[in-house]
Amino acid sequence: MSNSIPFQKILLNQLPIPIKLLTSYHSLGLDEREVMVIIHLLRYLQENNDFPTPFELAEQMTISEKDCANILRKLIQNDFLAIEQQMNEEQQLSESYLLDPLWEKLYSPVPVQEEKTVGTIF
Amino acid sequence: MSNSIPFQKILLNQLPIPIKLLTSYHSLGLDEREVMVIIHLLRYLQENNDFPTPFELAEQMTISEKDCANILRKLIQNDFLAIEQQMNEEQQLSESYLLDPLWEKLYSPVPVQEEKTVGTIF
Amino acid sequence: MSNSIPFQKILLNQLPIPIKLLTSYHSLGLDEREVMVIIHLLRYLQENNDFPTPFELAEQMTISEKDCANILRKLIQNDFLAIEQQMNEEQQLSESYLLDPLWEKLYSPVPVQEEKTVGTIF
Amino acid sequence: MSNSIPFQKILLNQLPIPIKLLTSYHSLGLDEREVMVIIHLLRYLQENNDFPTPFELAEQMTISEKDCANILRKLIQNDFLAIEQQMNEEQQLSESYLLDPLWEKLYSPVPVQEEKTVGTIF
Repeated sequence: MSNSIPFQKILLNQLPIPIKLLTSYHSLGLDEREVMVIIHLLRYLQENNDFPTPFELAEQMTISEKDCANILRKLIQNDFLAIEQQMNEEQQLSESYLLDPLWEKLYSPVPVQEEKTVGTIF
Repeated sequence: MSNSIPFQKILLNQLPIPIKLLTSYHSLGLDEREVMVIIHLLRYLQENNDFPTPFELAEQMTISEKDCANILRKLIQNDFLAIEQQMNEEQQLSESYLLDPLWEKLYSPVPVQEEKTVGTIF
Repeated sequence: MSNSIPFQKILLNQLPIPIKLLTSYHSLGLDEREVMVIIHLLRYLQENNDFPTPFELAEQMTISEKDCANILRKLIQNDFLAIEQQMNEEQQLSESYLLDPLWEKLYSPVPVQEEKTVGTIF
Repeated sequence: MSNSIPFQKILLNQLPIPIKLLTSYHSLGLDEREVMVIIHLLRYLQENNDFPTPFELAEQMTISEKDCANILRKLIQNDFLAIEQQMNEEQQLSESYLLDPLWEKLYSPVPVQEEKTVGTIF
């Protein structure tokens, strides 16, 4: 019976992923598990959970909490992910993940690599 | 300075709109103000505000609260929008908007109109 | 019969719209018809039609081709929309619409208006 | 310089992913590499490439063409993916991937598995 098709449930609750991430992660040195950590991170950020724990991220993945923590560490070390600290009005410090270093690499107006390529011509 | 590009703010917080709505509203008898009411409604539904008031909907539109209420009434009368009632555990009644009648018209596997058209040929 | 639900047709073919556009167009001085022209423009840009004509834009709207041309002119005059010219290898000139002035207003790191407001306090 | 922020390039070219896929693949018995094959498949389907080869899918992944073919086979065997055959006007057969079995599992109004589970209790 067509009345029971949950159109609204299907159409709402989507996460737009930049296609450039999907087509470029390989050349950035990332693998599928690492990209899925990034996608799960995006999902939490969209839900305004700005600092999901490795446990929360691993909860719906097939990797362990420890593997997830290692991937987060690698993403930070390789400058794909940053942690931002904010001080609220009660002088409490909170932290949030920032994927801007990754987007910067993907969308940077003047890609460093291209400059180098031009350089080798002359 | 490229560090200050708010990539994350740009990439998160998007509302996917079915392209079929954008290309078919005209033939469904809807105009631009009515579609924008539907899009604002989708925005509230995605934020889990299931029953925004005409005031909330009109707040970020250029039309008045009264015009907005009239458009909602027309959308219900013309079977694009439904109101669903739920009873919670404390026997309290809550209402939510359901755009399924609209999606049904757009995506229905066997469109009624086409059948009729075929019927008139013979 | 659930087999006939066209899930794939529903899930593909969506246009992500920045929520900030939906919540800010009013304060930018735009109305619903103008935003719908912008949304139809986005739809064509996503399909790699970089310079849709007023006719193409009006085709699936309830406004006339002439009204559509007037709205495009207003969007350019008020610095929401730009036209970019490219020269291809055969020295042919092609044009494409660029909505970057609009996104600049919405996401600009240092909003000009806020600076002015600060200025009037002192 | 803010003029050089490629807003349009950032905002267009996104692939909306159903959040239910991201939160449910684990319980459906899929792992991160398999979901990434599904996401790459979605990307090609959105581009109207209805039957990407394992080579095309693996091209921007860290897995081999052979691993990719194996994952596609597993997805079909476990009823997440189907192949649809069409005959065109010149009597030529073409094939396209259909992810509807997966969406069916995720959004089906009356999940078959739950019914079975209830059945085993008594």
